[in-house]
Amino acid sequence: MKKVAVILSGSGVFDGSEINEAVLTLLHLAKAGASYQCFAPDAEQPHVMNHLTGEIAPESRNMLVEAARIARGEVKSLAELDATQFDALIVPGGFGAAKNLCNFADKGAECELMPVVRDACEAFKQLGKPAGYMCIAPVLVPLVYGAGVQLTIGNDEGTATAITAMGGVHVECTVDNIVVDEQHKVVTTPAYMLAQSLAEAEQGISKLVQEVLTMA
Amino acid sequence: MKKVAVILSGSGVFDGSEINEAVLTLLHLAKAGASYQCFAPDAEQPHVMNHLTGEIAPESRNMLVEAARIARGEVKSLAELDATQFDALIVPGGFGAAKNLCNFADKGAECELMPVVRDACEAFKQLGKPAGYMCIAPVLVPLVYGAGVQLTIGNDEGTATAITAMGGVHVECTVDNIVVDEQHKVVTTPAYMLAQSLAEAEQGISKLVQEVLTMA
Repeated sequence: MKKVAVILSGSGVFDGSEINEAVLTLLHLAKAGASYQCFAPDAEQPHVMNHLTGEIAPESRNMLVEAARIARGEVKSLAELDATQFDALIVPGGFGAAKNLCNFADKGAECELMPVVRDACEAFKQLGKPAGYMCIAPVLVPLVYGAGVQLTIGNDEGTATAITAMGGVHVECTVDNIVVDEQHKVVTTPAYMLAQSLAEAEQGISKLVQEVLTMA
Repeated sequence: MKKVAVILSGSGVFDGSEINEAVLTLLHLAKAGASYQCFAPDAEQPHVMNHLTGEIAPESRNMLVEAARIARGEVKSLAELDATQFDALIVPGGFGAAKNLCNFADKGAECELMPVVRDACEAFKQLGKPAGYMCIAPVLVPLVYGAGVQLTIGNDEGTATAITAMGGVHVECTVDNIVVDEQHKVVTTPAYMLAQSLAEAEQGISKLVQEVLTMA
């Protein structure tokens, strides 16, 4: 049974992991007969968004504690992730990927990874183990893999330009498809960068999960 | 295109809607070509649970605001639900169904529905429109439909005894199946009362969605 580490960044599209993407990832891992373990940084979110109004809420929430809502309590601190114990890595999207796991939302092409995220993602690269990143999470990919890595965030020009400035090679992609960088063993899909429905998001995410498991 | 109202009670299995059940419901509605609108009571949760530790957290959260995390902001106050505008109703589970939408978790067979929940659920009954309840949410069913209504929460003896005391007719059911009360147009499935994985939960939930849409 293949074992996959999934990195979450909270619970909710506007300040954490996109819930639908996270659940679809875990669903397709389960349906493929793989096992998984969720992880999240044990750190406060930079902010909390009221998902009804779209406004910043005057409170603080911890990424690990909130990620436990998606994972039904079964989530570990990202600092505990030992890549040698897993066959692959998957990072769902949501603004948490661009605001919590790194500071792309603030700094654009000048962004940096959280150290605990960098260590985890780089460990999979060093071990030659495949990784899948979806939605906005592919902005992490040039930071981990360096210049020349192929990826997609769909077709958003501003984000694609920033990714190019970071050394990534952006490939346009539809919501029902994936981009595979065979050399770096990186799989990406647009998910909710383009999806208009859960059914659309599922098409690309199920392909990503299948490809990552095939490479593992 | 059939239109389904979905009632949420927050976001997280221990104090709101079970996230996986909610997403699987919306996924299968979307895949079946139905449209949906999520609703939740605009009221504070009785308490907030830290989903990592299982302890009560010293904060307050609003069901509607938290449900917006699952629904990507697209959720309305339950007080606005007009059953004449929908073909069917679905209520996912999670402890929120037993702690927020009614007080079953505290009062057992003596429990009462939140008035706004009672009004919404009874409206679908009065109009003869089908409804699906999953996981622990079927404890609401005897309160809405009265004595003699058939339903399942899986095979938990304590809960089944309380349901019987409330006038419901409990039918044992496996995780991959549904119980259909044709007369009352009520469909129930155990979901995470029994599910050991997302793949298991999906089997019963997809059948529930299909049956509710067939009846609608």
